[in-house]
Amino acid sequence: MRTLISELPQHIDSEVTISGWLFKRRLMGGLNFLVVRDRSGLVQILAKDETEVAKLQGLQNGTVLTVTGKVIKDERAPGGAELHNPVITVDTPVTEVMPIEIDKPINHKPELLDTLYEHRVINVRNPHEQMIFKIRATVLRLIREYLTKHEFIEIQTPKILAGATEGGSEVFELDHFGKTATLAQSPQFYKQIMVGAFERVFEIGSAFRAEPSTTTRHMSELIMLDIEMGFVKDHSEVMDLVSDLVSHVVKEVYKIHESELKILNAPQLVLDGDVPVYTVDEIHELYTKSGKQDTTQEKDLIPDEERFINDYAKKHDNSELVFASDFPIEAMKFYHQISPENPKKVLWADLIFRGIEIATVPMREHNYDKLVDQMKKAGLDPTHSGYKYYLQAFKYGMPNHGGCGLGVDRLVQKIIGLHNVKEATLFPRDMQRLAP
Amino acid sequence: MRTLISELPQHIDSEVTISGWLFKRRLMGGLNFLVVRDRSGLVQILAKDETEVAKLQGLQNGTVLTVTGKVIKDERAPGGAELHNPVITVDTPVTEVMPIEIDKPINHKPELLDTLYEHRVINVRNPHEQMIFKIRATVLRLIREYLTKHEFIEIQTPKILAGATEGGSEVFELDHFGKTATLAQSPQFYKQIMVGAFERVFEIGSAFRAEPSTTTRHMSELIMLDIEMGFVKDHSEVMDLVSDLVSHVVKEVYKIHESELKILNAPQLVLDGDVPVYTVDEIHELYTKSGKQDTTQEKDLIPDEERFINDYAKKHDNSELVFASDFPIEAMKFYHQISPENPKKVLWADLIFRGIEIATVPMREHNYDKLVDQMKKAGLDPTHSGYKYYLQAFKYGMPNHGGCGLGVDRLVQKIIGLHNVKEATLFPRDMQRLAP
Repeated sequence: MRTLISELPQHIDSEVTISGWLFKRRLMGGLNFLVVRDRSGLVQILAKDETEVAKLQGLQNGTVLTVTGKVIKDERAPGGAELHNPVITVDTPVTEVMPIEIDKPINHKPELLDTLYEHRVINVRNPHEQMIFKIRATVLRLIREYLTKHEFIEIQTPKILAGATEGGSEVFELDHFGKTATLAQSPQFYKQIMVGAFERVFEIGSAFRAEPSTTTRHMSELIMLDIEMGFVKDHSEVMDLVSDLVSHVVKEVYKIHESELKILNAPQLVLDGDVPVYTVDEIHELYTKSGKQDTTQEKDLIPDEERFINDYAKKHDNSELVFASDFPIEAMKFYHQISPENPKKVLWADLIFRGIEIATVPMREHNYDKLVDQMKKAGLDPTHSGYKYYLQAFKYGMPNHGGCGLGVDRLVQKIIGLHNVKEATLFPRDMQRLAP
Repeated sequence: MRTLISELPQHIDSEVTISGWLFKRRLMGGLNFLVVRDRSGLVQILAKDETEVAKLQGLQNGTVLTVTGKVIKDERAPGGAELHNPVITVDTPVTEVMPIEIDKPINHKPELLDTLYEHRVINVRNPHEQMIFKIRATVLRLIREYLTKHEFIEIQTPKILAGATEGGSEVFELDHFGKTATLAQSPQFYKQIMVGAFERVFEIGSAFRAEPSTTTRHMSELIMLDIEMGFVKDHSEVMDLVSDLVSHVVKEVYKIHESELKILNAPQLVLDGDVPVYTVDEIHELYTKSGKQDTTQEKDLIPDEERFINDYAKKHDNSELVFASDFPIEAMKFYHQISPENPKKVLWADLIFRGIEIATVPMREHNYDKLVDQMKKAGLDPTHSGYKYYLQAFKYGMPNHGGCGLGVDRLVQKIIGLHNVKEATLFPRDMQRLAP
């Protein structure tokens, strides 16, 4: 019977058997200390018996071992216990020295990222690196639990599409049994269609963007959380749900992974009360007043304004989450809803977290005639086969609805305070990277 | 304040406001009955006031309404309540008659499937059709909860790969910034790599198969549950976990969705005790004895044997889940583990549920030298760049491990007893179908 390393303190003075990887080895004052790693943690093993130590002759870290020994209480040891008098079995020998060390805190300096991914297969064995992906798994779980509790139905929509229906050239094309198909940039049309069925739906899935950019915030393949909800009173109802979801997830993660976040040097979380909302015009005004640059004539936010309003909200509203709302009509896509109060504004908000937009939160036009009209104004042909099914949903009745597209990779990145979104991704894809 | 239809019984004799879609309309004995649908159910509304009824003049089912009225207890009504004296607001008018009816039980006769998908956008509004996808969402939730409880870490791996590393021509190709890439058929290599980090991982994600087949069990895009677990004693430990997971999920779904499964005419569930295991040789023998056909010289199972052994296990073992194990070496892929007891057998089991294989459950070869040897024997080049990162995991130590690939669409199909896997999928993709 295998005992997990984390369970050792429950077996003080008993004999147990553990299995794991040889993580480290030290010779100290004639004594052999081994450190073994399993999924639950690390333990130090004191080996005095030379016959046992000899079994590891010529073997390197990574060797898979089964070790039977006596659990000894040791306050200085991580976890509070050591294993003494080990009897060792080598399950999988490793004879080559690992190309990188995996017992050091993570070092994701930009210039080291290529090395990080070159050795990804090995560095995911670093307990510090693993913390990132345990946190990521928790984020996913918390999102789903929250949305299920709020009566959202999980859906799964196709990633192979008939054509680039949203327009734009930034799509990947493939041959699908003789027809040209594209990879989905988002489940936009499908989730809206499903509002007609379930009112509230969500999907966490792959999205593909053929953007030729190599910034710290872009990848060609990402994981998106897509939410769509119907029968909403107004834009603020959607914004409230999204900000409540994200606040809840971030706060819970900071509780659940308090120790890991400390080890990873994550920033202190500042998130008290409601998420403040500033219109784009207000942000231009505040930014201009701050003396940085006059942006009052700008339509969209300039990148530095995202960081600026985040700092501003952190200081004035005690919140590292902030909405920029009321985007100019120039930013709108044909399926967005124009503000009923101001035809120059679109009901679109960006949720900004620690200086970066992590979610777009727009309302959709739900009236069939208006939608067709907006398509024509955008230069699109509503009779095009790519819009046929989408428009059916509206022809047969859609409620007022809105939703969000949230970058899961970015959210995890920013929770931990990582420099690059790729650090929050196991095997990222970008212009240069297709492996591992 | 909107009240959900399912909450009406808590508001007997009070005035409430509901919102939803006009689902049906009947004129009976001079009285106007409306049925409105929201995400929680249906309610009948009795409208006597002609001014209110006149608001719906020329409008069709699907029209989005807000209705304020008095809740009247009515035992005959579904849900036990009706709405009387309504004041109606039309939120989104619908003037065209829907091309299909959505108030009838589902009828998925094979010859009607094309019509089903042609009108998919509308028929997902059919409460019967919706039951399929509510059940699907529950299946996903239960799988994740079970695996999280058993200390599996959720991972997300890329769907764009550098090349067809597993071999085979049934992959979709695309251009990724000037390089030829392929769409992942499975996360096989990645999940094995991650065993080296977390021991136990799972992923629920998209998989892509360019199989030119149009059977009732194939799609070009599917949702796979991939599980991989390390430090297992033997094959049976992996098989036990997978069968326990599937049994648990199926049983729970039959509890949670008892009424829906009855309405959908799902078969009675027979699943008592352990999931029985029959070797492929035993199945050949039993099948031959049954007088159907002599398969004792066959290597692999013939399709009718999958159905046969399922019927057999249902009768003899009270189980609609059954394992076929010990597949012949001819079926093996290079990364499978050959049986230590019989070099002509591979440690591979298929989990069969109601006549169809829903999961493959093999052990992997974890020894680097043996794995490289098996690659060479399979005619593959271990120095090929496509295997470089995968092999790193083994070079630096992998424990004995195995896992499963389970078709989520098929599992949902078989739980409900649907004829075609596409019926369990919102927007299926196959050779002929790229839309909606």
